[in-house]
Amino acid sequence: MRWSQYFLYTLREDPADADVISQKLMIRSGMLRKVAAGIYTYLPLGLRSLKKLEIIVREEMNRAGAIELLMPAIQPGELWMESGRWKLYGRELLRIKDRHDRDFLFAPTAEEVITDTVRDAINSYRQLPINLYQIQTKFRDELRPRFGLMRGREFTMKDSYSFHVSWESLDETYEKMRTAYSRVFTRCALEHVPVEADTGNIGGSASHEFMVLAKSGEDAVVSCPNCKYGANIEKATSTFFSDEPEPAPMTEIAPLHTPGTQSIDDVGKFLGKPTSQLVKTLVFDSDQGCVMVLVRGDREGNLIKIKNYLGAEWLEMLPDSRFENETGGPVGYCGPVGTKAKRVLADVSLRAQKNWVIGGNKPDTHLGGANPGRDFAEPEYGDFTTVFAGDPCPRCGTPLEIYRGIEVGHVFKLGTKYSEKMNCTYLDEGGQRQPMIMGCYGLGIGRTVAAAIEQSHDNDGIIWPMPIAPFEVVVTQIGREDNVRATAEDVYRKLIDAGIDALLDDRDERPGVKFKDADLIGFPLRVAVGAKSLANGQIEWSLRKDRAKQLGASADVIMRVADEVRGRRV
Amino acid sequence: MRWSQYFLYTLREDPADADVISQKLMIRSGMLRKVAAGIYTYLPLGLRSLKKLEIIVREEMNRAGAIELLMPAIQPGELWMESGRWKLYGRELLRIKDRHDRDFLFAPTAEEVITDTVRDAINSYRQLPINLYQIQTKFRDELRPRFGLMRGREFTMKDSYSFHVSWESLDETYEKMRTAYSRVFTRCALEHVPVEADTGNIGGSASHEFMVLAKSGEDAVVSCPNCKYGANIEKATSTFFSDEPEPAPMTEIAPLHTPGTQSIDDVGKFLGKPTSQLVKTLVFDSDQGCVMVLVRGDREGNLIKIKNYLGAEWLEMLPDSRFENETGGPVGYCGPVGTKAKRVLADVSLRAQKNWVIGGNKPDTHLGGANPGRDFAEPEYGDFTTVFAGDPCPRCGTPLEIYRGIEVGHVFKLGTKYSEKMNCTYLDEGGQRQPMIMGCYGLGIGRTVAAAIEQSHDNDGIIWPMPIAPFEVVVTQIGREDNVRATAEDVYRKLIDAGIDALLDDRDERPGVKFKDADLIGFPLRVAVGAKSLANGQIEWSLRKDRAKQLGASADVIMRVADEVRGRRV
Repeated sequence: MRWSQYFLYTLREDPADADVISQKLMIRSGMLRKVAAGIYTYLPLGLRSLKKLEIIVREEMNRAGAIELLMPAIQPGELWMESGRWKLYGRELLRIKDRHDRDFLFAPTAEEVITDTVRDAINSYRQLPINLYQIQTKFRDELRPRFGLMRGREFTMKDSYSFHVSWESLDETYEKMRTAYSRVFTRCALEHVPVEADTGNIGGSASHEFMVLAKSGEDAVVSCPNCKYGANIEKATSTFFSDEPEPAPMTEIAPLHTPGTQSIDDVGKFLGKPTSQLVKTLVFDSDQGCVMVLVRGDREGNLIKIKNYLGAEWLEMLPDSRFENETGGPVGYCGPVGTKAKRVLADVSLRAQKNWVIGGNKPDTHLGGANPGRDFAEPEYGDFTTVFAGDPCPRCGTPLEIYRGIEVGHVFKLGTKYSEKMNCTYLDEGGQRQPMIMGCYGLGIGRTVAAAIEQSHDNDGIIWPMPIAPFEVVVTQIGREDNVRATAEDVYRKLIDAGIDALLDDRDERPGVKFKDADLIGFPLRVAVGAKSLANGQIEWSLRKDRAKQLGASADVIMRVADEVRGRRV
Repeated sequence: MRWSQYFLYTLREDPADADVISQKLMIRSGMLRKVAAGIYTYLPLGLRSLKKLEIIVREEMNRAGAIELLMPAIQPGELWMESGRWKLYGRELLRIKDRHDRDFLFAPTAEEVITDTVRDAINSYRQLPINLYQIQTKFRDELRPRFGLMRGREFTMKDSYSFHVSWESLDETYEKMRTAYSRVFTRCALEHVPVEADTGNIGGSASHEFMVLAKSGEDAVVSCPNCKYGANIEKATSTFFSDEPEPAPMTEIAPLHTPGTQSIDDVGKFLGKPTSQLVKTLVFDSDQGCVMVLVRGDREGNLIKIKNYLGAEWLEMLPDSRFENETGGPVGYCGPVGTKAKRVLADVSLRAQKNWVIGGNKPDTHLGGANPGRDFAEPEYGDFTTVFAGDPCPRCGTPLEIYRGIEVGHVFKLGTKYSEKMNCTYLDEGGQRQPMIMGCYGLGIGRTVAAAIEQSHDNDGIIWPMPIAPFEVVVTQIGREDNVRATAEDVYRKLIDAGIDALLDDRDERPGVKFKDADLIGFPLRVAVGAKSLANGQIEWSLRKDRAKQLGASADVIMRVADEVRGRRV
């Protein structure tokens, strides 16, 4: 492609409303253009990366035995009523009425349509397992779309769904898909980790997320450097508290005057104790009612763990205005002793501890020497806190590390959630009808492209990994002399003929502008043809990542550049 | 691909609600599955044809200098308000409210978004022309979706938009695109004609449709076998009437008693005259008011031509109940003499005629010897009728032929309709702002696949042209003997290794079922491996289109089949 005939315009300024680096760089480099909040046009340059990734994803899906089809974006509400998601899915589901006033939606995922397809086609255990996928435009009506392609409303996703007669068969496909996902991200040269993830409201028994590591990542990822245990922060456990003995005898319970201490830090400072020796009281509202949760003062309550323990659909902090009513204690001074709360949970970190310092359920009052079982009913113990860096790995005890990551893939053992509701069954060997066991597997196409940029850029722009770079090489023509033009054209043509995906920067721009644009767009390799070095029979080439310039005769440079490109492809 | 591991199930019965052959065959052959009215899933087999066509379309678009991007399916209403289409587009536009109650729509085409993109990026004549395209899912909320992919609601379309500084530049790109479209349909081995088309309400100055010829086509296509003049029936003209002299003198006007003659045929029979010697009176209502249109008795009024002449947004037959009021004459006996109709049009076919026989504006009465200019005001003459087969070509006079066709592509000179409304301008060489001149070009991807089937099938199923066949060859394993299995597998592997897109029918089915399925799906070539011929060291192959069987040693058959496939690719 010749730049002068291409549709590629870079921007000097950061877009005003971009809130992450990938969004800024994709817009500035002419890959992406905002059409509305969370809705983008992939400009020609951006589409090239997207399509390259799609090819890699297709190859790995096909290798894993998955079969491609294409389901509609607009789906009938009826099927979603059958699965129950029409009601359960919140306002992120873009609901649509057609001209006959019938209910439709723009699909965010396609469990219903695929289950409907499979129940129609498959009748016998002999026809299973099957694993079907599509690469299709999805829509999720985010309340606050942001982060560009990271949390857009319209987005391209690869989604797969597998159907099985047994959990063993599901496990087998699940492992194949995990491998396929790892291969995709490895082929894109992305540093990534698969982590155990919460199964949340989707139901199902096991789930892994694939995280591309990047400082700007929205998610925290817990990882063991020794045994490769990995989990997202919502799910991760540690053995930090499991058997911390505390042989001390129980002391008397006694009130402590703690005026004006609203936070746990205030209480610690006032009493001269580290917060690890205090007990923090959290109060939540949920569809399962109000609940009090006690955690060690230096730890954070984990809403997802608490919600899962309760089996709740939703859980949120109790508003201050309702504290007195629900617990009998004022905000900042709540505690389990004499509380009105019907249910009290305590983190396992507290199980071995005696003589708790805890809210007294009166203004300006805490209690010391409070002991469960004696001063108040034994709470329900469980894992209700979030892992900290340095906590021991639950598998091997090595101190855990915490990274920031971007979720780019999610694999999920769904079980029979959809097949039971939608009557997707098969006849087993004994002639009995059984619900199929399902898995589902998502991979964000646009999101992965954006994550690659989050992971790999510098102050001047993107540094593309070769396999998803929009072009592999830019040939920059510096100046308008005839021999410069001719050589640049010749190098470009020879690279194209060698199967290299090259762009010729033949624009009528100053060298500085061209170099700045090349850095911003982040072509992995640059070849520069200018009068000065050409006078010595040489042209220049460099890698974007270190920009170390090398000179050589054009035939040598072409060969060397082609080799570099091929060596970085996968 | 091995059929036993594929997701491909054929149906024995025609689907109840399929109304065209392509829809029946795509559903029965396991290519397509209905999800809701006008909304389909492309099953794996169907997606293969779709993707093959997409590759051909991309290659030809790129060859024509068009550049691919990807615009969103969900577009903001604001842009459509700016162009005026938010109001003008009827209920076929799927309008959507997001969670913040903002107006959006599922795009049926993308003039607004592309114009917004280009006005933002391009400022100077130096940056033009540019031609941008996408292959994207569209939605048109048809009142009565039918004919499967022919008039579906959700569909895949390639749409391009070009921007120019001059009409000459537009003409150049328009010709390139016409050539590209012809190449696409030729490469798909489809018999097709480009025809002049009406520019309708979209506005613009010229337009061609690409019609795939098929008996079941929705559209009538007028074509000259000599000079290649082609036009759709709404647009086609002929010279049939242009200079038919009638030197006869005017006779006296006189009433004719014609009781109970409601139709023109009745009148002809009653008076003993051919209908070509009578004048037929049509009355229409439109946004430009009521209008009377006179045509020769044996000809058909052409609503599109009349509508365009009037510059009307809509035009329809006047309901019987309003005849008396608007024309002063009863239904079946209306005429121009003494009519209340404010505007009277007459087809050019009548201009040279004298002594018209025409409705008398009284019950049971016609008039003979009526002459315009003497007995009633001269009507407005124009081309208001539809061409018949055998009429002389307007270019060369050769008798015209009429075919049925399916519109699969449409190219269109838009002019400045959108650029003026949306302020999409450039600075010309003199530094003046000018609106860009635009072209747009659509090609129905799913529709072309369906049209291929409409054009090429028999009673047993589809007969695929090689380039868009879902698989090029099926290798049918007949029986379960070890040597049959091994040979079939070997032939399959060798075809795959030779780069042939083959499917191995290794299912545990009777030969009759396998052959029936192969005919239904319409693989261009079939190789059959069975014990009987294998005993003589032979296997069998045949082309789907004639099913003539040929035997040979497997190495020879593989070579021959690979040659046949390659020879039919493009």
